[in-house]
Parts: sequence; C-alpha cells; structure tokens
Amino acid sequence: MSEVKISEARISEVRTKAALAKEAAAAMNLATTKEKNEALLKLADALIAGQDAILEANAKDIRSGEANGTSSSLLDRLRLNPSRIEGIADGLRQVVELDDPIGTVLESFDRPNGLHIEKHRVPLGVIGMIYEARPNVTVDAAGLCLKTGNPVVLRGGSAALESNRVIVELMRQALADTALPADALQMIEDANRSSVDEMLKLNGLIDVIIPRGGASLIQNVVLNATVPVIETGAGICHTYVDATAEPSMAEEIALNAKVQRPSVCNAMETLIIHSAYAESRLAAMAERFREKNVELRGCERAKSLLPWIKSATEQDYATEYGDYILNVKLVDSVDEAIAHIRRFGTMHSECIVTETQANAERFLAEVDAAAVYHNASTRFTDGFEFGFGAEIGISTQKLHARGPMGLPALTSTKYIIKGNGQVRG
Amino acid sequence: MSEVKISEARISEVRTKAALAKEAAAAMNLATTKEKNEALLKLADALIAGQDAILEANAKDIRSGEANGTSSSLLDRLRLNPSRIEGIADGLRQVVELDDPIGTVLESFDRPNGLHIEKHRVPLGVIGMIYEARPNVTVDAAGLCLKTGNPVVLRGGSAALESNRVIVELMRQALADTALPADALQMIEDANRSSVDEMLKLNGLIDVIIPRGGASLIQNVVLNATVPVIETGAGICHTYVDATAEPSMAEEIALNAKVQRPSVCNAMETLIIHSAYAESRLAAMAERFREKNVELRGCERAKSLLPWIKSATEQDYATEYGDYILNVKLVDSVDEAIAHIRRFGTMHSECIVTETQANAERFLAEVDAAAVYHNASTRFTDGFEFGFGAEIGISTQKLHARGPMGLPALTSTKYIIKGNGQVRG
Repeated sequence: MSEVKISEARISEVRTKAALAKEAAAAMNLATTKEKNEALLKLADALIAGQDAILEANAKDIRSGEANGTSSSLLDRLRLNPSRIEGIADGLRQVVELDDPIGTVLESFDRPNGLHIEKHRVPLGVIGMIYEARPNVTVDAAGLCLKTGNPVVLRGGSAALESNRVIVELMRQALADTALPADALQMIEDANRSSVDEMLKLNGLIDVIIPRGGASLIQNVVLNATVPVIETGAGICHTYVDATAEPSMAEEIALNAKVQRPSVCNAMETLIIHSAYAESRLAAMAERFREKNVELRGCERAKSLLPWIKSATEQDYATEYGDYILNVKLVDSVDEAIAHIRRFGTMHSECIVTETQANAERFLAEVDAAAVYHNASTRFTDGFEFGFGAEIGISTQKLHARGPMGLPALTSTKYIIKGNGQVRG
Repeated sequence: MSEVKISEARISEVRTKAALAKEAAAAMNLATTKEKNEALLKLADALIAGQDAILEANAKDIRSGEANGTSSSLLDRLRLNPSRIEGIADGLRQVVELDDPIGTVLESFDRPNGLHIEKHRVPLGVIGMIYEARPNVTVDAAGLCLKTGNPVVLRGGSAALESNRVIVELMRQALADTALPADALQMIEDANRSSVDEMLKLNGLIDVIIPRGGASLIQNVVLNATVPVIETGAGICHTYVDATAEPSMAEEIALNAKVQRPSVCNAMETLIIHSAYAESRLAAMAERFREKNVELRGCERAKSLLPWIKSATEQDYATEYGDYILNVKLVDSVDEAIAHIRRFGTMHSECIVTETQANAERFLAEVDAAAVYHNASTRFTDGFEFGFGAEIGISTQKLHARGPMGLPALTSTKYIIKGNGQVRG
C-alpha cells in the first residue's frame, strides 16, 4: 500500500483532501498537549462567535429536510439552536480537560544485547469519519481526533451539508490562528454515495475509518472498506432474569434497559426469563411494560402466561428494534439463556439479574460481548458512564478496541529502540 | 453481522469448518492455562510420534513441487526432515513456557454510582490464518492461537497440502485426548483460490484474518476481506547514515541490515547517506557491499561518487527487493532523509545512525513506523529479538497491534460490570 501510486490516480475532492490531511499528519504528530488544548478552546470560541452563520445554514438544512419529507426524529437530530451550539462548544472544552494519551510510554525494557526498547503511544494517523446528519458529531469527532493528534476527514450525511460546511469552515479558520495545521480538519462536501465509497478504499492516505450511524451505514462500511475499520454500533442486547432474581431489582433493570431510551444501541431488545421466575412474576413485569406502551412479543411459553401478546419469530429475535417493542423468551437454565444470546446477540451489552453468585459468574465468563453486566442496566455501556470523559463510539468488534472508546482508542503505538551499534548475529 | 443467516447460505468446506471452529470458541474461552499447556505438549509429542507419516506426506509435496518447477528456495522452505520436525515440536514446547495473557484484569475501577467495572483480556475468537507453503507456520499458528484460547482455521499454500493435512490430522487426534475441543483446529483442504476468498468474507464465523506471506498474498487479503484483518509484512526499510555517524558502526549496521538475511521484511532496501559522510566514506562502504555481492543502484549524486553503479529509479525506491540489491540515496539533512522515508517507506522498520543526539531524537519522533532505531540494525524487529518468546507476525498497520506481535496481540478485551440494581437516570 505504498503512497507512490497517488500521482497516477485521478484527482477527486476526496483524494485531494485526504492527501492534505495526510500532509498534516507529521505536524499533528509533533503537536504538544498545550498546543492542542489551546486550539480546541479556539474552536469552541469560534463556534460561539459564528453562531448566527451556523443557525442560518442549519435553517437551510431544516427547510430542505422538510421539503424532502425527512422524519421528525431525524429533523430533531439535525436541528440546532443557541443552547445546542453552546452544548457542542462545551463538549470541546471538556475534551481539553482530558488527559492526552499521546507520548505515554506504555512499556520500557532492556534486552541482554543492550538494546533499550520503549513502546510509545502515537496518533493513529488520518481518521475517516463517516456518519449521519448530526452536526454535533462533526464537532465531537473533530475535537477527539485533534486532541489525539490525528487529522480527520469528515463525511457527514448530506442532510446536514450546509450546517457542517459552516461549522467546519469556522473551525478551520480558527485553526489557522493556532499551532495546528488547518489541513488537519477536512470535510467532504460531495454528497454522492460515491464519495463514501472512495474514502473506504483510500489505503495509504486514510489510516482508519470509523463509521457512526445506523446498521445500513455501518454494514456498507464494513463490507466495502479496504482501509481498516473500527466497527461501531449494532446492539441486540439481552437482559436475563434468573430464577433467584430479586423481583423489584429485575423489574427496574429490565424497564430501564428497554424504555429509558429505546432508540440507542445499548437498549434491550429481548428479555429472557427463567421459567421459575416467570411463573409467579412475569404477569407483574408485563404489566409494567404495558404501562410504558411497550409491545411484547413472546415465545410459546411466554404466550401461555400472557395470552394477549403476539408471537415472537426468529426474525424478531434477530432484530434491533430501537423502539417500544420487546421480545420475551422463557428458558429453564442459565445455559439456555447463554445459548440464546450466543445465537442472536451482537456482542454489545448483555445482563444477568440474579442472586445466585455461581450463575452470575458463569454468565459473565461465558457470554462473549463488549460489556457483560451483573445486576445493572445495559444502558451503562457508554464512554461517559464509564468515566472516560468522551466517546468516539462503541466498538462491537474485537480488534483494537472493544466497548466504549475514549481517547486511547484513537491511538496506535510505535517501538523506539536505542542501541550502540548492535547488529543481528 | 448476525449469525442468524448461516443456515440460509450454501454449505461449503470453509463455512462448515469455520462454523465448527466457532462452536469450539465457547469451550476454548473457558480453557484453563493448565489445560492449554497440557494440550500443547501433547501436540508436540504427536508430531514427533507421527514423524514418519509427516515425512512421507512431505516427500509427496516435494515431488509435486519439483514436477511443477517450483523454485529451489520455495522447496527449501517446504522441505521437512527429522531435525526440522524436532524444531517445530520444540516451538510448541516453548509456547507452553510463555505467560498466558487470558484472564488478566487490565483495568479495574469503581464509578460514583457504585458500579464496579473491570476490563479483562479474552480470546479474539476464531482466527483465520492465510499463509504460504510453509508447514512450520501450520504448527506455529496452531500453538499460538490455542495458547490464547482462539480456535483457528488454517489455510496454507496448496504446495504444502499433503504435509499440512497429516500435521493437522495428528494434532487434531492429539487434541481429542485433551480438555480442548479438537474442532478448535481446522484446516481448509480446498486448494482453490476461491476458498481463500470465502474465508475473507465469513463475518460472524471468523473474527480476524491474519495473512502471512508475500506482498501479493497480503494485498489480496487486505483488498478483499470484510472480516477484520491484521496486516503483516511488507517492509521497505531504510537506514539513514547521518553526517556524524561513527563510520565502523555505520558500516556494520548497514551491512547487517542488508545482507544478514536479505529475504526478510526487516532487511534494508535503501541506504540514505548524508552527503558530508558520503564524500569521505561512501567508497569504503560501497566496497564492503561489493564484497558481499550486493548490487548497488544510486541517485545521481551517489553515482557521481560511484560511477560504476546503476541508476536508481523511483520504482526502485518503492520496491521491496528481498534480495542482494540496494538503493543508495544522498541527502543534505535529516529532514531530507525523513521526507524520503515518508514517501517510500512502508512504516515497518527505520534506522538512523548518528552521534548527533538532536538528530536522533528528531528521527525517532518524526518517522512514523512500527519500529524506529537509533544506532542498531533494523533486523531486530522480531518477536523473539524483542523478548516476546513468540511471534505470530509483524503488524504493519496501526490498528490493534503494531510491530512484532506476541501472544497479547491475539487477545481482545471485555468489560465486566458488577452492580446492585443500578439503572440509568
């Protein structure tokens, strides 16, 4: 994947901007924590100062969205107002407060031949962010990438194009007045899907692609990228209520996992219940979900206890509803619960509610997921809830980073070896 | 990437065996260090006990290779004899001695809401190894994967098919007599390229693909895999001899980097020399390379000092020769050296020889590679030389692992969260 072929290829917006980002990598690599923090504060100020221009551009996006029949929930994510812009700028200021992982020496050792070897944290390089029409992600991603010394190429959803254009222009202008190169921040304006496809194959210019968004966006990236990807997202999460679960705790955890925010990836999609618990307690649990307008879909055994609910199909168990719908599945053992999760889970977040320590231990050891919980809601899988102070996404893959990704997930390492003439025999 | 779709797809050797490996993952995940070590010792014994069958199969591979006109260097890598089999078995026994990274708690912290969060090292899952006709890699990879609790699907070069078949069969039989599932070890016998292509896209059944081999094998994997890949391999490595380099040290390091084993990825391909050093010392250095039958290809300035050498083209600078050929490039500063490396290097191993500490520091900080050296040969980039006791490959990518990969590179992490009824507000 040598860079030598660059000059032979066609020149497009994507390639040009990625090449500028790559050029900026060397300076970003050397930027000090102080320089990076000063730059982030200037970006925050620039967004506040440029608020009118942002709101004007955002109004255009909203009008286009309305004209195109965009759903009200998408419009809500797209819409900015002064308090949201203030919140976005505050997010940058919070990143300033976080420890800079770059430059940390992770290991240091001496070899018998006298070589001194150190493993240093370094930036990942150029990060390609592909995401949906959420202008706050534009700023979040820029802040986290710059703090970790990484140039970033942003490709947001076309519905936020006007907002993002103004936001990025304000941030690039602000960068020009800092020690960081303005070219470390690039935004792809080409709204065609082909610009995403091109980013996915820019080995040598983009070091890592991070997709953020719905299942189809992520699937497209995973299936088509030749650049390494950090997969984020899809969550078919389960809560297993064991025979000995404390009933009020089980109900609170299950309700929280489903209804506190059903649209997010760490929300529960299927409630697995031990038959011994279900016999005496499922009716009460179901009543609480009914109060919250959650539609229940059950296995045959669940339906025999709750004749009024629909049947859950295999496809239902494999669906991330992101909505007020919940599958209910009865089992006779923790093994059966684990087997169901192994089959249908997406290795995101899984929970057991039990007072039987041995069952908790088996569940925590045997369920293969980014986060496994005993007696707590799956909704805690989140960089802020984990105390990382930031989150670039939640990795659902096993390479590089798994679970909530804070700043260290945006770094790589490099071995530095010091000798005095050693050669290999 | 749910597993639910498995049953709908066609059943092939690759899919069947990957599914068996996936099934074995749960048991491998729970295997204790003692169980894994006992199994590895039995595999080693089985290879020694089955030596005659291995040699017979290997003789078939060698005869086919000779009939097909396979090069003598490839035949040499393919050929086994009792002492090589002993060495391969010893390799397994050495893996037994290494610390098991699985189960280590990497971080542990409490949140204000009372949640206790731990980050545990866990196996990666099913590893797909794609490699060339080297039967020793079959055993190496099996040993390292099993030690780290990972099932492995092996797809070696077809020229070693008979040898690999017997080796894997012996190891699977040996596993049957251990606590580990024999299905944790799978070998693809289908010699068609299509079996590789199928592996590359088995998301949900294979968790990671690791290619080991030449540039075209690796390129094929990187460009076609939808499963996450750990890229290994290609090395266009440079040695930069600065103006103040100590001459005898510079000569020894440069010679070692080129000729100690020219075919490997950490060998030098281009010697960059400061013009002030070159003026008085290049002739002597060139003489030493000539004595070792190294063909030199130079930039115009190098040629003016060594009129008898060929010209180096841009393409030469971008070529991993793996042979007794060396480019010589003159520069006027450490900046110029860094710029050349940035343009033509593959981020593998890079070296500066200098007595000027400031130049060394700049080179070590600014050159972006897996391993950067001051006053030592690039040939040390190796898991054994680094003291890891093993090496599954040398990663040239920035995600997950970079540089020589020992056992921890074959692991992932998992968050285990313990609560007492916490829900998110």
